[in-house]
Amino acid sequence: MKRSTRCNRKGSDLPKSTRHRENPIIPIEGGVTAAAGFRAGSTRAGIKASGGEDLALLSSDFDSAAAGTFTTNAIRASSVDWCENLLPTNRIRAVAVTSGCANACTGRRGENDTATLARLTGKAFAIPAESVLHASTGVIGRFLPMNAIAKGIASLAPALSTDGGASFAEAILTTDTRKKEVAVRVKLAGGSITIGGCAKGSGMIEPNMATMLAFITTDAKIAPDRLHAAIRRAVDRTFNLLSVDGDTSTNDMALVLANGASGCAVTSGDRTAFDGGLFMVCDLLCKAIAADGEGATKRVEVAVSGAASAADARRAAKAVANSTLTKCALFGNDPNWGRIACAIGYSGAAFSREKMSIRLCGVPVFKNLQPIGFDEIKIHRLLKEKVVAIDIDLGNGDKAAAAQTCDFSYDYVKINAEYHT
Amino acid sequence: MKRSTRCNRKGSDLPKSTRHRENPIIPIEGGVTAAAGFRAGSTRAGIKASGGEDLALLSSDFDSAAAGTFTTNAIRASSVDWCENLLPTNRIRAVAVTSGCANACTGRRGENDTATLARLTGKAFAIPAESVLHASTGVIGRFLPMNAIAKGIASLAPALSTDGGASFAEAILTTDTRKKEVAVRVKLAGGSITIGGCAKGSGMIEPNMATMLAFITTDAKIAPDRLHAAIRRAVDRTFNLLSVDGDTSTNDMALVLANGASGCAVTSGDRTAFDGGLFMVCDLLCKAIAADGEGATKRVEVAVSGAASAADARRAAKAVANSTLTKCALFGNDPNWGRIACAIGYSGAAFSREKMSIRLCGVPVFKNLQPIGFDEIKIHRLLKEKVVAIDIDLGNGDKAAAAQTCDFSYDYVKINAEYHT
Repeated sequence: MKRSTRCNRKGSDLPKSTRHRENPIIPIEGGVTAAAGFRAGSTRAGIKASGGEDLALLSSDFDSAAAGTFTTNAIRASSVDWCENLLPTNRIRAVAVTSGCANACTGRRGENDTATLARLTGKAFAIPAESVLHASTGVIGRFLPMNAIAKGIASLAPALSTDGGASFAEAILTTDTRKKEVAVRVKLAGGSITIGGCAKGSGMIEPNMATMLAFITTDAKIAPDRLHAAIRRAVDRTFNLLSVDGDTSTNDMALVLANGASGCAVTSGDRTAFDGGLFMVCDLLCKAIAADGEGATKRVEVAVSGAASAADARRAAKAVANSTLTKCALFGNDPNWGRIACAIGYSGAAFSREKMSIRLCGVPVFKNLQPIGFDEIKIHRLLKEKVVAIDIDLGNGDKAAAAQTCDFSYDYVKINAEYHT
Repeated sequence: MKRSTRCNRKGSDLPKSTRHRENPIIPIEGGVTAAAGFRAGSTRAGIKASGGEDLALLSSDFDSAAAGTFTTNAIRASSVDWCENLLPTNRIRAVAVTSGCANACTGRRGENDTATLARLTGKAFAIPAESVLHASTGVIGRFLPMNAIAKGIASLAPALSTDGGASFAEAILTTDTRKKEVAVRVKLAGGSITIGGCAKGSGMIEPNMATMLAFITTDAKIAPDRLHAAIRRAVDRTFNLLSVDGDTSTNDMALVLANGASGCAVTSGDRTAFDGGLFMVCDLLCKAIAADGEGATKRVEVAVSGAASAADARRAAKAVANSTLTKCALFGNDPNWGRIACAIGYSGAAFSREKMSIRLCGVPVFKNLQPIGFDEIKIHRLLKEKVVAIDIDLGNGDKAAAAQTCDFSYDYVKINAEYHT
């Protein structure tokens, strides 16, 4: 994944905690198999009508601590229930992902299929079904082709490899146009550990206390509860501030597995470094999802500062990130900042009428509830870049939040008018 | 306005209260000048770059009781503040509407312009500025061309006529493709009265305790407070359940003027009939806005029943009406009901997992959290009709609500990528 794309705003994509001192977090190549002791791979099991790769397996050579966050949608895929029932735990050995069929709204039969899939995966690795996590993504309301999947698991399980992360990252995609992988090396007191991950997600994306599918692995040694707290914090600051279309999926989950293969434990003194590494992996995957949103021609970062509370900052950022009108204007390279002001107005966030201000691509456009004249040609050029920055100062405090989204194009409509049939 | 388009669902567009007994509410031709004692007209003042009609005036021959509901957006046009400060009252004589410039986010100068506009209109009719209401719609963040508007008001005011309602309804439009007018005659104990109205609205539409611009007149005699209560109830059941794109505008308002010119007072025994007539006018204008949503190829009616509370019914109906994914599928004539289930799931509405069911175009597609097989060719044909019905039974009680929306097409994106520049 290309990580060098800069926002048209001063500063950098790196999280704050890593900017101003000796950097203990180094980006490296790879994804879910970057950390030691993980293997992955994928195959064509026959789930996707396109005939593409659609079954992905990840295994750990050792029992892993595992934690996750899940969709808040009241209608949930049985894979979500399965994982949430098992986590956090310290006995996970494998993750099976089916792509092309969400196995959501499939009732009792769907639940049985998830249990069978876990049992089959367990059998292939000679581990209990309860050591297997399952994630699914694709069309809602269809049943999994279990015979084809059984064959796929049996042939794929022995073929996993320590460089199979890319294959795994590819197979989990649906309407995504490219795979999303990130890995970092983090220096702890006792040595170096690796955190790597991949994600999929392009439409039906407004994670809410959860995310689209994201799989993160680390060879750090860490207790399940500690890992659970870390992933919740990271997700809350990244995937939970991401929106492509405002639709919270039935299948979202972010999973993290820690197998301790590095021999290096996360001590209490390592907390900032470990959390920083996990945040960076989530943050970059989140930005990759926004950039690859269905039909997106650019990524949009909505940074809100000057809020009285973190909740206000999040509310304003998400309202702008969800404003269809704003996103259509950005697709048209149109500096129609009135739509941004409008979204702040209906967001429910408190702001100062006198001090609230908006910058678009770094250019001040609105202050004191009045327009500011700007160079239309310059801003039109800046709006054509791959990443567009919207900076909002609510003028009401010192809390901040940043939401990720993308523009809204003809292709979003095309993809979603044609996806099912 | 064509009012005969039927939904592909059993029943009719008429409100329930008028269905099963001698009907005291009769649809008639006309709009804001259908009621006695109102005059209207419009002109090209030079606000719209297109050179179209952009200044509309409505006057009453008598002091009118007037009430309104207004946008809940914290960033509001000065026209909204102006009207809300005056209402409810019994001294309104005129309404001035500027179209093509929202006069929102224009600060002190915008406020002064609104006051000047009211003063100029008052001067033209020889009435106080406080007897003039003002509504504005168009691009946010631009100033009104006051010199051109002053000339427009002076020349238009003497030219208003009792058959100028259509001209008024035409001039207030922006991205709308057709005018929206409705009128009804209502039989009260003391005689017949008329209620007529028009509305504009096509994008930036998710009214929230308010609406897009709607202007309703009646020649009934009714106290301002009583009128205020009646319009609030009607708006809550109609415009507040309407969404085109989930963006709550800075300029929304629904105004109702009652000038008593019929000589017929609304007695306490007439309440049901009067409210029914007002509801029908709002309901049909609301459906007309949904059908003419930006880029819409069809109107979509989301009817939720079986809810434990009215709030739950509204939540579920609005979540589905706001689901971009569902609306793209409907544009593609695609029976992708999984997206409807998904939206119900994240709506926050309580429902019974066992009893919740979905019908699309009258065809059962989902029950017991399981798909129901259906005739794909038949449903594909039904989805091509001008009005599509989504019926959801939450299986959890006896409360109901219906939301209005439209499908989501390439043209929505096109219109909103190109509107400003």
